Amino acid sequence: MRRAPARKPRASRARAMKTPSRVRRLTHVDPAGRSRMVDVSAKAATARVAVARAEIRMQPATLALVRANQVAKGDVLTLAQVAGVMAAKRTAELIPLCHPLPLTDVAVRVQPDERLPGVTVEAVARTVAQTGVEMEALVAAATAALTVYDMCKAADREMTIDRVRLVYKHGGRSGEFRRSGESGSWRP
Amino acid sequence: MRRAPARKPRASRARAMKTPSRVRRLTHVDPAGRSRMVDVSAKAATARVAVARAEIRMQPATLALVRANQVAKGDVLTLAQVAGVMAAKRTAELIPLCHPLPLTDVAVRVQPDERLPGVTVEAVARTVAQTGVEMEALVAAATAALTVYDMCKAADREMTIDRVRLVYKHGGRSGEFRRSGESGSWRP
Amino acid sequence: MRRAPARKPRASRARAMKTPSRVRRLTHVDPAGRSRMVDVSAKAATARVAVARAEIRMQPATLALVRANQVAKGDVLTLAQVAGVMAAKRTAELIPLCHPLPLTDVAVRVQPDERLPGVTVEAVARTVAQTGVEMEALVAAATAALTVYDMCKAADREMTIDRVRLVYKHGGRSGEFRRSGESGSWRP
Amino acid sequence: MRRAPARKPRASRARAMKTPSRVRRLTHVDPAGRSRMVDVSAKAATARVAVARAEIRMQPATLALVRANQVAKGDVLTLAQVAGVMAAKRTAELIPLCHPLPLTDVAVRVQPDERLPGVTVEAVARTVAQTGVEMEALVAAATAALTVYDMCKAADREMTIDRVRLVYKHGGRSGEFRRSGESGSWRP
Amino acid sequence: MRRAPARKPRASRARAMKTPSRVRRLTHVDPAGRSRMVDVSAKAATARVAVARAEIRMQPATLALVRANQVAKGDVLTLAQVAGVMAAKRTAELIPLCHPLPLTDVAVRVQPDERLPGVTVEAVARTVAQTGVEMEALVAAATAALTVYDMCKAADREMTIDRVRLVYKHGGRSGEFRRSGESGSWRP
Amino acid sequence: MRRAPARKPRASRARAMKTPSRVRRLTHVDPAGRSRMVDVSAKAATARVAVARAEIRMQPATLALVRANQVAKGDVLTLAQVAGVMAAKRTAELIPLCHPLPLTDVAVRVQPDERLPGVTVEAVARTVAQTGVEMEALVAAATAALTVYDMCKAADREMTIDRVRLVYKHGGRSGEFRRSGESGSWRP
Repeated sequence: MRRAPARKPRASRARAMKTPSRVRRLTHVDPAGRSRMVDVSAKAATARVAVARAEIRMQPATLALVRANQVAKGDVLTLAQVAGVMAAKRTAELIPLCHPLPLTDVAVRVQPDERLPGVTVEAVARTVAQTGVEMEALVAAATAALTVYDMCKAADREMTIDRVRLVYKHGGRSGEFRRSGESGSWRP
Repeated sequence: MRRAPARKPRASRARAMKTPSRVRRLTHVDPAGRSRMVDVSAKAATARVAVARAEIRMQPATLALVRANQVAKGDVLTLAQVAGVMAAKRTAELIPLCHPLPLTDVAVRVQPDERLPGVTVEAVARTVAQTGVEMEALVAAATAALTVYDMCKAADREMTIDRVRLVYKHGGRSGEFRRSGESGSWRP
Repeated sequence: MRRAPARKPRASRARAMKTPSRVRRLTHVDPAGRSRMVDVSAKAATARVAVARAEIRMQPATLALVRANQVAKGDVLTLAQVAGVMAAKRTAELIPLCHPLPLTDVAVRVQPDERLPGVTVEAVARTVAQTGVEMEALVAAATAALTVYDMCKAADREMTIDRVRLVYKHGGRSGEFRRSGESGSWRP
Repeated sequence: MRRAPARKPRASRARAMKTPSRVRRLTHVDPAGRSRMVDVSAKAATARVAVARAEIRMQPATLALVRANQVAKGDVLTLAQVAGVMAAKRTAELIPLCHPLPLTDVAVRVQPDERLPGVTVEAVARTVAQTGVEMEALVAAATAALTVYDMCKAADREMTIDRVRLVYKHGGRSGEFRRSGESGSWRP
Repeated sequence: MRRAPARKPRASRARAMKTPSRVRRLTHVDPAGRSRMVDVSAKAATARVAVARAEIRMQPATLALVRANQVAKGDVLTLAQVAGVMAAKRTAELIPLCHPLPLTDVAVRVQPDERLPGVTVEAVARTVAQTGVEMEALVAAATAALTVYDMCKAADREMTIDRVRLVYKHGGRSGEFRRSGESGSWRP
Repeated sequence: MRRAPARKPRASRARAMKTPSRVRRLTHVDPAGRSRMVDVSAKAATARVAVARAEIRMQPATLALVRANQVAKGDVLTLAQVAGVMAAKRTAELIPLCHPLPLTDVAVRVQPDERLPGVTVEAVARTVAQTGVEMEALVAAATAALTVYDMCKAADREMTIDRVRLVYKHGGRSGEFRRSGESGSWRP
């Protein structure tokens, strides 16, 4: 039986609560309440990595179609991967207050998962810059999932994209973040 | 207590099963198994509408920050709405096999929802064209949600984007789709 | 002697005042005060044209540089023209609530004007669509002017772009608009 | 009574005249008269900031509409601010010979000004790079102004965008520029 | 001495010579010698198709690498195909005087060819519009070829992209064009 | 029978064969055969330059038209140059696995060549980054050539773009590359 996108487990919540109060605010809002980009001019460029995940739930018959197609060229999963990589590079065009970043690496993995049933997405983004690449990883994961939706929608309009989330982040002042309850290991 | 992004209710599944078998295939794959755009040259341009929804789950304290900011100019919710509208217009650049479409309308509504707790997104897209605007509505909803994530992430890295889904579609050969279990009424 | 970007002459103001009251509102704002694209799905596609103008004021010595360069290939004025045409095609990416339109024509003319002293820009945009091309013409004119600024800025940082304005518009429900005090004739 | 976008005051002109003669040329033109990007490969990356301003003149009744809308979500001024920020990030796509830059900050402020009557725009751009961000600030200011035009044009077609200008610049070989007659202080 | 990519065979030349003299001019140049978009406002929207081809020549060992990779997911050839399709949709952004078109179909086929040795590309583009899709097909073919270059360049820097050419075109006033010496049949 | 764009001369082949075997693989493919960006996070940013060339063959009468137009403003060759420069800046959007790079210089030269007969293109790209700019130079050269095609196509549909190739590269771990049989000298 499928488990629902679970609430964050207790441990994770506890840690989040311990986040120093100074960051418990909206950094994209200036003292006058006006939204703005965060000024990172004075920060040093350091190596950054972020990993995001997402999943697309679908009917078992739809997943069977994806699997059957998988042996062919230009299959659903490959196109979703390419779309994710390319979207990561355009994050700053899509997310209004994101900084444009010289990405040094993007990799997206899309694979079938019978337990959902559906498809899971994992996206890794890296840079050496003054700010992090969380949004790049999340945009890659979401776009890969949307591409799967596009290619399967004639067969199954009720697919759902779920649990688009950051699972790992390293680098920068806020240090390392590791979402609890997620498997996998990433090198900084 | 929050209910999880539920499995599609039985009625909905049943209907989906009745989908004529001819569409139970991947339309973006040619006989040789190669992915390709669907050729819509011979289809008539007709009025189309699609409605998509998404939600971002967050800690209650994060939602409180969003609500507090809401009275200010350029708040989180407004920026998410703008980002959604602008992303819809670039759907064909993001989703590899999507047709470029002359959108005649895009509207995105982003609002706080204490029950999640978090924020809900609804995006409506319209065109008069040879193919539908499901992807435009879904891209708008997902991008609006990602923008909320971006603007709140310093306060809460564990937010999750869930239930990105098509809830309504009208126009074109496949007729009307109305996802069961969704409230709201849309004019064709 | 140069005359400053003048206030609109009295006659023009008078006419504007007679604009029927039903359009004296912000069409991009819904009843709840939320900004949105204008839904043009139900409108017929008709031929539209719009003409916009702008000017860049500069020191006489800067204009002399532009003129001297004019005989060369890839001169300032030509690059400004190309930039204006290309920007017009991307109007819907830049202006949040603009509809994407299949432009059928864009032409930009950039020429020196000793009386400013400086450079004048005129941009014409055409389409056959459900909505007008005023913004396309204005974006073309403004971008052409910005390109002149870019190419001359090492010589003159105090240049000013002025009087970016719509001078003519034809087609659509609101009919013809002809800004008073502007010379030139355009065919609908 | 409002004075028109004035000629640059005498003092400013005088200073500009003192600009060393070596920069009194078109840097984007090669010895053969062919336009080209300026090669900045050998320059060091240093902190840069630029501030640009613009204004949109409109009828008093139009400004009243903008003000009335201002209390709502997604109002004209907020959308103009977002559009300005997003356009700054795409400057190198619009201005043919601009270098692509990793912007570290963009902020745009759009506010009503009864004296014009109309709306004023101020845009700040920052980077740490081999070349300056004047064009990014100017593109942001111009696009914010164009967005105001778009959202108010059904009420007032005769609005004019005026005085798009650089008011401050710091960083790089050419040092600091401060346009005379402009109020405001910016930190390098 | 270098041998050139062969002149077009005699038959083809002969036909081209018969092209009516009225089109023997540069349509993108106005009477004043200024480049401009062709105004297609008054033309009827009709079905259009264009087919372009290109080839990438490489060392036999490089082609062997491509072939070996071909059985894997996300191989060189698939990525080149996706890149070609996506580039076709952005033709009007790349080619200054191209009209933006609502493409109804794009398909790209990339396959190894031992005789070159190398890889051949074929791109088909369709629309229902006032102007043709030759440039869309050519941009798709060229970008697919460039993508092959990118993915193989660490192994072979001396690859060459050759014979990027239009092989078929149908629709519009100028009727059908079929390049002589090319195999293949396309439906209008 | 068609004669092919000639094989690379023997000397060039010989050198290529000496390329160390470790680079004789597809760097964009991971151990699982999945395509991916090359991770350059750990590489130092160094100065890079790349030079690419291309040629467009056309009928003598077409070249005469290009030459006649050359004296006018906004001529074919100038537009092709601008298009090449602008396309170079968008390489990472077009080529799926290319890194986005802060280009420090792009220059494109397009000139008539009676011997082809046709037009030759040379594009130079520079950056200070963790990876090279070969693709930027190639994209610039190819797009400039495609722009010539676009502007002359009404006069000559049988033009061919040939020999799009890298002729020089400097910087980075793989050192200098100089294609044999090419004239010209470039400074690193």
